Amino acid sequence: MAGQPKIVTAALLLIGNELLSGRTQDANLNYLAKQLTAMGIRLAEVRVISDEEDEIVNSVNELRTRYNYVFTTGGIGPTHDDITCESVAKAFGRRYMVNEEARRILENYYDGSGRDLNEARMRMACTPEGAELVNNPISRAPGFRIENVIVMAGIPAVMRAMFESVAPSLEGGVKVISRAVSVLMGEGDIARPLSELQERYVGLEIGSYPFVRESKFGTTLVIRGTDESDLEAATEELISILRELGATPEDKPAISDGSWPKPEA
Amino acid sequence: MAGQPKIVTAALLLIGNELLSGRTQDANLNYLAKQLTAMGIRLAEVRVISDEEDEIVNSVNELRTRYNYVFTTGGIGPTHDDITCESVAKAFGRRYMVNEEARRILENYYDGSGRDLNEARMRMACTPEGAELVNNPISRAPGFRIENVIVMAGIPAVMRAMFESVAPSLEGGVKVISRAVSVLMGEGDIARPLSELQERYVGLEIGSYPFVRESKFGTTLVIRGTDESDLEAATEELISILRELGATPEDKPAISDGSWPKPEA
Repeated sequence: MAGQPKIVTAALLLIGNELLSGRTQDANLNYLAKQLTAMGIRLAEVRVISDEEDEIVNSVNELRTRYNYVFTTGGIGPTHDDITCESVAKAFGRRYMVNEEARRILENYYDGSGRDLNEARMRMACTPEGAELVNNPISRAPGFRIENVIVMAGIPAVMRAMFESVAPSLEGGVKVISRAVSVLMGEGDIARPLSELQERYVGLEIGSYPFVRESKFGTTLVIRGTDESDLEAATEELISILRELGATPEDKPAISDGSWPKPEA
Repeated sequence: MAGQPKIVTAALLLIGNELLSGRTQDANLNYLAKQLTAMGIRLAEVRVISDEEDEIVNSVNELRTRYNYVFTTGGIGPTHDDITCESVAKAFGRRYMVNEEARRILENYYDGSGRDLNEARMRMACTPEGAELVNNPISRAPGFRIENVIVMAGIPAVMRAMFESVAPSLEGGVKVISRAVSVLMGEGDIARPLSELQERYVGLEIGSYPFVRESKFGTTLVIRGTDESDLEAATEELISILRELGATPEDKPAISDGSWPKPEA
């Protein structure tokens, strides 16, 4: 018998008062959710917390023991309100200190830039002792990884560049694949046979997402799982069920790319 | 002496596998963050979790003891994957049962609609015993409130209508007001005097948010607090500091409406 497929999990910690006050609209969650899903890493939980040391320390410690990876975004700049790096060092009980490689990166960047690598900017060269740097091709000041915790910037363009830098070193598990079928029929008319279908395929996860199009109720049904033959069989059964109910589903929905299926799809 | 200003806090629990897989982009966090901030309710923490009973029960119980209000979104439809209501009942140790008022609302709605109030749809009339309903003027199936936990739909239009229904019954605390000043100067050049300003105004929260405009680095500085005279004084000092550094800040930034300040502002 083959071994159990490997499940790899992650949590995401979005750090920043501006997200909680509503001043800034998050643009990192959905990007990271899609990227991780595509790599076979299951995003299991997301938290948004304020720039407060206790909050960061407690959340990092809680999440890093529970999941394979923890990604943080935000709070790694040069100003007094950027306290993520010190707080992560504290969570690990490590010293917060200048990383010599980060210092060289910043020295090279600021040298001749007309801007000053002052004391405040030198804070961006500090990491917990022993952390590995995460490359930042956009604005140079690096992120870092310590054990299973990856600390990234909050600015979406910088976060994405950092994630692309670190992604090749991440170990994915078995990938979740999915099929989506949309019909112009209310969820409530499909609920019972759908529940019975879920009971027959306990290894798959069947989700139902309502939408409205031209004042008509529609439902997108999404089947997700790791076993492609089960997924195909369940999708065939689902399509039969929907036809029996009088709906006109798509016959052969494409493998989803993880984006919200358009009602037109 | 006047009493201490009252601080009212809230947590938000976004429930749904589709948010964690990246299939759906959240549209509720930022709306609720802005609304709560405007009402004097401080959103202190947000969690995004999957449609799993243990996750919901544990998160609801952890958050409802820690904050004045807990808002949940998602998982209250008629299909098997909608388990928020049962899970919240379990969190409170209450029976999950038909709410007679909700039953009447659904009977009136489906009567003559051409759609059937079947067993699956009747699940939408169930709440924890003793819950108060939250009106849903869009698709009728109500949300509910039990003690300090308010359970709402995940579909943004329905969630917003439910929030508007429940908002008048929420008790706000002292409101946080803010000033925002933008300059075309890098964060690192402002960091030190900004930190000193923060030390002089411990009752205010000073945030620094970098941006890039036409390849130039800029910074938006946001001062938040509850004391308007402190806020005015700190803003005046900030503007003087920025002028001394050679930047040209706005003289009289408007009271922020909570949206991300445009670099042009």
